[in-house]
Amino acid sequence: MDDLVERFLAGERRALARIISRVENNTPEGREYVRALFPHSGKAHIVGITGGAGSGKSTLTGALAREMRNRGYQVGIVAVDPSSPFTHGAILGDRIRMQDLALDPGVFMRSMAGRGALGGLAPAIDDVVSVMDSFGFDYVLIETVGAGQDEVEIAGTALSTVLVNNPGTGDDIQALKAGIIEIADILVVNKADHPGADVLVSQLQALLSLAPAGSRRPPILKTTAIKGEGLGKLLDAIDAHRKELETSGDLAARLREDARHAVLSIARAILLEKIRQATPEAELEGLVAKVAARELDPHTAAERLAAAVSA
Amino acid sequence: MDDLVERFLAGERRALARIISRVENNTPEGREYVRALFPHSGKAHIVGITGGAGSGKSTLTGALAREMRNRGYQVGIVAVDPSSPFTHGAILGDRIRMQDLALDPGVFMRSMAGRGALGGLAPAIDDVVSVMDSFGFDYVLIETVGAGQDEVEIAGTALSTVLVNNPGTGDDIQALKAGIIEIADILVVNKADHPGADVLVSQLQALLSLAPAGSRRPPILKTTAIKGEGLGKLLDAIDAHRKELETSGDLAARLREDARHAVLSIARAILLEKIRQATPEAELEGLVAKVAARELDPHTAAERLAAAVSA
Repeated sequence: MDDLVERFLAGERRALARIISRVENNTPEGREYVRALFPHSGKAHIVGITGGAGSGKSTLTGALAREMRNRGYQVGIVAVDPSSPFTHGAILGDRIRMQDLALDPGVFMRSMAGRGALGGLAPAIDDVVSVMDSFGFDYVLIETVGAGQDEVEIAGTALSTVLVNNPGTGDDIQALKAGIIEIADILVVNKADHPGADVLVSQLQALLSLAPAGSRRPPILKTTAIKGEGLGKLLDAIDAHRKELETSGDLAARLREDARHAVLSIARAILLEKIRQATPEAELEGLVAKVAARELDPHTAAERLAAAVSA
Repeated sequence: MDDLVERFLAGERRALARIISRVENNTPEGREYVRALFPHSGKAHIVGITGGAGSGKSTLTGALAREMRNRGYQVGIVAVDPSSPFTHGAILGDRIRMQDLALDPGVFMRSMAGRGALGGLAPAIDDVVSVMDSFGFDYVLIETVGAGQDEVEIAGTALSTVLVNNPGTGDDIQALKAGIIEIADILVVNKADHPGADVLVSQLQALLSLAPAGSRRPPILKTTAIKGEGLGKLLDAIDAHRKELETSGDLAARLREDARHAVLSIARAILLEKIRQATPEAELEGLVAKVAARELDPHTAAERLAAAVSA
């Protein structure tokens, strides 16, 4: 392990790739790596890029990484999306568009399935991001689909969250209304060459004007990621948001919030593992069969399991 | 409490609404209601309807509920989506389209935000579905956005899962490739009047032909939910799937899987609550501050929290 850590700290990409593989599988060995490398983290700017299906967020993530590379920065990318073209993608055009990044030694990409065992999701993403941060990337981009619980958890990890909107559908406006806008630090209208783009910008402006007085108004930017347009301004806005966090003191608060979230979600995973260890599989199966037969309610069954673990 | 349960069992909708409000807030009182009503559950057919933003799944859910009503069935709807028009929706057209259902005494709708405290999501949805089931609805529809962890958890609760695809984007095919198709019992191509619909059907057929020999091939159906077209065949397919589950013995296995999932997720929530009780807020804050300052790694901090709870 020491040897791999040493090579990692010397900047060897193969060591990074190996450590991430161990970390994302959430093994005790993987956790030792997170522990060893954790003191080296905290320098990267973590940027969340979230948006619905068809918003072009994968293409935007790629284009933003290219802009960062043009300015001489090193970039880590974590794609948390089962449909991300970064690895699983079936559409040839996407793969070709990403190929230059895949071959660039200043970029490191990793795709995570965004699913797994009960409660297993969040800690592994946090750990992979933390390891990339420790490696010395200037930016770590987390690409995630913008819906449900996950994106809120990822917004917890990111220091700047970019919400990508698509002029093609009306769904985004609804999502914004429902509160997703609260997690967005920067709003992007992608596919700015689409006829509906300016209408969407106006709608977003109208929506933001309804926010309580004194609350921060996220900037609205237009990009056409597929043509590489608007990325310079987006990166400027991300850097400006980072500075804003630093000068307002919000950065410290966000880092504490992240830490709280990470600690509690890992503790939860540890306790779930303890449940599985404390209860023989046959006993668990017996409880489950009773619940399935409606002889026992799930809360009573769960309390029995929890009692076997807690003092 | 007994009075409210009695009125619930007598079919009083106001009692149902009150009990659901208590259950979704996940209070000890709410859990007592779940416990009391649980023996009455297990009769409804639980149908998950999942799909990306813009797939029209809300409209499809409404249209499917209407078809069920036309056949004389009682329907419960749980919308787990922050952008669902069932309650939060801002788009007037959607609200008007749903109004007939909102006024129908044979339909009961509830929207859940799909987010909340760490790990708080899944148990509350299970409980609300269980309460609706106990009330005597023939079907309970769970509408959820199809991405990330959530939809997999909801597929755990549903007995038949309908995956709604939209000919407008290429994203669905990618998502399918990545494994979401594994949770789908029925595939729907909605917006069948869209020029790309037949191409999408062919693509889905091609994709399904790649499945391992002997595995079940979910049927592919075309609907135009906004015009109410194709819903009869969809409901027939849902009923056929239910029968298939019953005759193959898979129903018992699914009910056991659901029970297992529910029990473990509640146990996890109980233990998280115990952590919060066992650790004074000041101590938790102290650990979190050390993690934020990179003086302590999150795994070590989490282990200390977990140790305070477990024997």
